[in-house]
Amino acid sequence: MIVVMAEKASEEEIEAVQRIVDEAGFRTHRSADRSGTALGVLGEGGKEGVAALVIGMPGVARIMPVDVPYILASTEGRHEPTTVEIRGVPVGAGHFAVIAGPCSVEDETQILETARGVKAAGAKLLRGGAFKPRSSPYSFQGLGKEGLRLLARAREETGLGIVTEVMDPRDVERVGGVADALQIGARNMQNFPLLREVGRAGLPVVLKRGPSATYAEWLMAAEYVLSEGNPDVILCERGIRTFETHTRHTMDIAAIPALHELSHLPVIADPSHGTGRWRMVAPLARAAVAAGADGLLIEVHPRPREAWSDASQTLSLEHFAALMASLEGLRPVARTGP
Amino acid sequence: MIVVMAEKASEEEIEAVQRIVDEAGFRTHRSADRSGTALGVLGEGGKEGVAALVIGMPGVARIMPVDVPYILASTEGRHEPTTVEIRGVPVGAGHFAVIAGPCSVEDETQILETARGVKAAGAKLLRGGAFKPRSSPYSFQGLGKEGLRLLARAREETGLGIVTEVMDPRDVERVGGVADALQIGARNMQNFPLLREVGRAGLPVVLKRGPSATYAEWLMAAEYVLSEGNPDVILCERGIRTFETHTRHTMDIAAIPALHELSHLPVIADPSHGTGRWRMVAPLARAAVAAGADGLLIEVHPRPREAWSDASQTLSLEHFAALMASLEGLRPVARTGP
Amino acid sequence: MIVVMAEKASEEEIEAVQRIVDEAGFRTHRSADRSGTALGVLGEGGKEGVAALVIGMPGVARIMPVDVPYILASTEGRHEPTTVEIRGVPVGAGHFAVIAGPCSVEDETQILETARGVKAAGAKLLRGGAFKPRSSPYSFQGLGKEGLRLLARAREETGLGIVTEVMDPRDVERVGGVADALQIGARNMQNFPLLREVGRAGLPVVLKRGPSATYAEWLMAAEYVLSEGNPDVILCERGIRTFETHTRHTMDIAAIPALHELSHLPVIADPSHGTGRWRMVAPLARAAVAAGADGLLIEVHPRPREAWSDASQTLSLEHFAALMASLEGLRPVARTGP
Amino acid sequence: MIVVMAEKASEEEIEAVQRIVDEAGFRTHRSADRSGTALGVLGEGGKEGVAALVIGMPGVARIMPVDVPYILASTEGRHEPTTVEIRGVPVGAGHFAVIAGPCSVEDETQILETARGVKAAGAKLLRGGAFKPRSSPYSFQGLGKEGLRLLARAREETGLGIVTEVMDPRDVERVGGVADALQIGARNMQNFPLLREVGRAGLPVVLKRGPSATYAEWLMAAEYVLSEGNPDVILCERGIRTFETHTRHTMDIAAIPALHELSHLPVIADPSHGTGRWRMVAPLARAAVAAGADGLLIEVHPRPREAWSDASQTLSLEHFAALMASLEGLRPVARTGP
Repeated sequence: MIVVMAEKASEEEIEAVQRIVDEAGFRTHRSADRSGTALGVLGEGGKEGVAALVIGMPGVARIMPVDVPYILASTEGRHEPTTVEIRGVPVGAGHFAVIAGPCSVEDETQILETARGVKAAGAKLLRGGAFKPRSSPYSFQGLGKEGLRLLARAREETGLGIVTEVMDPRDVERVGGVADALQIGARNMQNFPLLREVGRAGLPVVLKRGPSATYAEWLMAAEYVLSEGNPDVILCERGIRTFETHTRHTMDIAAIPALHELSHLPVIADPSHGTGRWRMVAPLARAAVAAGADGLLIEVHPRPREAWSDASQTLSLEHFAALMASLEGLRPVARTGP
Repeated sequence: MIVVMAEKASEEEIEAVQRIVDEAGFRTHRSADRSGTALGVLGEGGKEGVAALVIGMPGVARIMPVDVPYILASTEGRHEPTTVEIRGVPVGAGHFAVIAGPCSVEDETQILETARGVKAAGAKLLRGGAFKPRSSPYSFQGLGKEGLRLLARAREETGLGIVTEVMDPRDVERVGGVADALQIGARNMQNFPLLREVGRAGLPVVLKRGPSATYAEWLMAAEYVLSEGNPDVILCERGIRTFETHTRHTMDIAAIPALHELSHLPVIADPSHGTGRWRMVAPLARAAVAAGADGLLIEVHPRPREAWSDASQTLSLEHFAALMASLEGLRPVARTGP
Repeated sequence: MIVVMAEKASEEEIEAVQRIVDEAGFRTHRSADRSGTALGVLGEGGKEGVAALVIGMPGVARIMPVDVPYILASTEGRHEPTTVEIRGVPVGAGHFAVIAGPCSVEDETQILETARGVKAAGAKLLRGGAFKPRSSPYSFQGLGKEGLRLLARAREETGLGIVTEVMDPRDVERVGGVADALQIGARNMQNFPLLREVGRAGLPVVLKRGPSATYAEWLMAAEYVLSEGNPDVILCERGIRTFETHTRHTMDIAAIPALHELSHLPVIADPSHGTGRWRMVAPLARAAVAAGADGLLIEVHPRPREAWSDASQTLSLEHFAALMASLEGLRPVARTGP
Repeated sequence: MIVVMAEKASEEEIEAVQRIVDEAGFRTHRSADRSGTALGVLGEGGKEGVAALVIGMPGVARIMPVDVPYILASTEGRHEPTTVEIRGVPVGAGHFAVIAGPCSVEDETQILETARGVKAAGAKLLRGGAFKPRSSPYSFQGLGKEGLRLLARAREETGLGIVTEVMDPRDVERVGGVADALQIGARNMQNFPLLREVGRAGLPVVLKRGPSATYAEWLMAAEYVLSEGNPDVILCERGIRTFETHTRHTMDIAAIPALHELSHLPVIADPSHGTGRWRMVAPLARAAVAAGADGLLIEVHPRPREAWSDASQTLSLEHFAALMASLEGLRPVARTGP
């Protein structure tokens, strides 16, 4: 349920409504845009009683029942598209940004070379894994702390903001101490303690879609972060599991316009994981942009064949530069909506 | 297995190889492009014995084992992309065409109005269902013969070639007597008697992907048509079944570059069935074009809300014209490959 | 909509209702069980008008709106479980039967040896493919007419009724001239012209579930057969496509109690196709029986390793006999329902 | 790679092999059964060099390359089936146990009443959620610490060992301080920090299959726990996500014999989550037992309709008792294998 306040409602009137809601055992989430203030009423259970109390109060314009369970993430909860800023780089609401870098941080030479290369080609943010979720306990698990240090070193030199994954709620503070945005991996999309923890970390969150998650489940996961008070969530489509084995996953390009209709949050696409094949990264990146994506997440390595992980889906710096050039002509003609 | 003949191999040398293959109990499929003649060796079972007999024969350049079971559809079977012509309109190998029209043919006014409208907006071919596959025996099953007559009437007036579905091997002759291309629907992708029958009909075939089919199964279905001697198959991606329920199907845009790598056949996309929502048709159409599609199949109706079937995914003539305009700028910047 | 007639309604009263329904542009389907006569009102579109006309007529007990679109297949359409007889062998409503035999009929020795063996072990019906749907046009497609002759020969000797697949509506008459029941394969579950044709053939139909079909789609396919006037449909669960690649398909054992709740039709299980691995056929056969299956369809061959198709999922006669013995103890303790 | 030592190999010979492996940069995992000692060689990368060094050493019987990446969980890593004991109750290798209880612990009356009831009906262990993973941040998240206290109270009175879920690596110590076995929920199957943490907790682990996980991924998740030195993992099939919406998930009964072939670990089934419908719990429980399950996990509540979560899939005490009785006759006739 959302209580929409009149445009001229006073602070006192708003707080009076909040008190009534609190006393009824619910929480309020306050948000404001140009059309005024809205109070989301959060909590499980029937809200008809609260509605009855609130409807006649001064300053209340109207009450909207919300069918969707992800009230804060929904376009009903907020009408205008959200722009998330990562170290000053805006993403969403017309702002487009490419986040590029290696799957795993390997050593100083690799990360610096990559950072310089992707910056030169037009990327605005640097990705790189320090803590890696791996299906096998015997696979390389990332450089950990040392990886974070190397990412910070690359930022120091290039000025590129850093996006890196956090897997463990106990690591949020440490990773958040270095990163400019925290990535939640696909396998952790419903790791609720982790979502709550990054919701409290005060940093933008890039939330990857689980490989079998529906849009509704994905937005519910975003809601976990938002409901902790962190409004800066970027949704990242990275392919879903299907019967097709030729590609690693199947990119759901329709998720981009669909999420833009259901939610105000920015939506970016990761064609590297989405296809698992470097030859298909560029066409799918272009498809995502043509469908209205607010950004891209691309795996790049100076020598892809030597990459410690995800070699087959990683672009060389040359191919990445060629892709970025091809987007130049595409961006002006791309737009969503009929 | 493919026997590649030397560029200067004589007709006698080619026929001698064919005789040896025949005698060993296999069939040959002969094809030629600028690099010379190739003989596909078709049939089940080990072909090592034939290879041993053929390898030293005059005019034989080399022998290629082919791993894929769809030899005629594969890029190993034919290196150059195929162009399929439907009533003089080329599709594939750089030629782009939009096929548009209503889900079902309803009456003369509807089909003529649609045909004129989509032609004016730039469509080159007209689609329209006369025989409709429906999940329920109680749903409208199409106008049948009368629908074919109305399609012919629309062609007469607008000159647009006609693409329409055939569901029953017993109808191939009748439908083929009117249509310029025969469509095989998703649910019939593995209807083998029907595939064989359209393979003998001497008309181009638009082969839709089954909703749960892999690329390999889809190409094997194309192989059924090709192996009957019909080289004119257009593959149509129309969305696969996934867990997502917000959209009717999930469009697999990656199928476009993937099929272009695996096969020489043209690949088009149907974002109407692929999404099931008219608001998402345009962004997904643009995504398909950006990923290198050779054409589009779009459902259009003068008054979508009154359409007898698929109303929710059908564009009005106005929205269709707007979509076509938006493709103008996109086509030059779209291309496949890294 | 179903019009339930009073137990004592006269023939005249029933026919009067049918006339009214006909005049309103709908069809009626008449059925009777111990509780009296019911008239299913078939056809698309709102039926409120008919209901208003019929509700007060003499002999009408009550009118039931039916939510499900498969009115004849549903338990609302018929309360008592249906028993289908194949050459005198009852299946359903407490009657259990095993249908066994080779994937493909290969030659007289093979089919006779198998028929004798499965009969000795307790099978009541013989399966064997004469017309085979194959993904590749180059694979063995079955012996065709000769296969039918051999099946008839095996019946002559053993007395076992014959269940065999028909793929092409043009073959229904020929196959139906020999078979005691017609099987519709998974890939043809939505081959509507074929479903209509077997609906008119006057023989029981074993309808396999499509590899990605929902229960509702499966029952709609059954409805196609039933609505042609053929009440003898057996549903056969044969595994669905999932991400798991260890097994050929994933058997949905829950389909058995679910279909028994949704429909009155008998439900059998095919663990051979359902698993694709002969070692797993017996445990899954037992699971199906424990969940209440009305029968089993099992692939058996005297020398599985030499089978021309599906060798890896075929039981030897010895293993089949062992499986049948293990079902002896199981059947009495198996039952559905909580 | 597994180094199998001769039956009479001395302790010194075994340790000498371990030293060589360590020096080559790999880890060894030592296990012993009646056929002697085996050393699993763990770690990423080629092991041919180590094999060459070890093959001639005294006491080495043979070296087995292992294709599967889950060496400790595989039947190659250990031939005999494993029995896991939870508070003295054996599960696996012929030992069958039912774990029953409410989805969520609600209050003392509810949990005591349930514990007494399920014990009387033959359950050997008590389940109950104190920390609940919920798709929505606004849903009831479990009683937490208080829930643990109530579970301990129920154990005190009934003697039933306790199985309860842990979601957060930071909670493992607290939950493990009370529980007799730790459950990893389906959504956490690939929560690697959590798997490692429960691997070190010294308690048996019930590892649920992820809703879209393959057998290989599931066994790799088990490998995470095993590789931390915890041998007591029970695999729990609880249904996978498919297109079917009638049931909450689709139970993959074939997973039971398949996992018994691939792994030595016990396999149990959860038909409550697996179907999401209480009417289907009993038939699917019987199917799982008939397919060879080592145990069942069943949701039971004294008043299912009043349950705070999962009401629709929860059995009453009466229905649970009836199910347990029906298993009496089934267990002796159930067995896996052909």
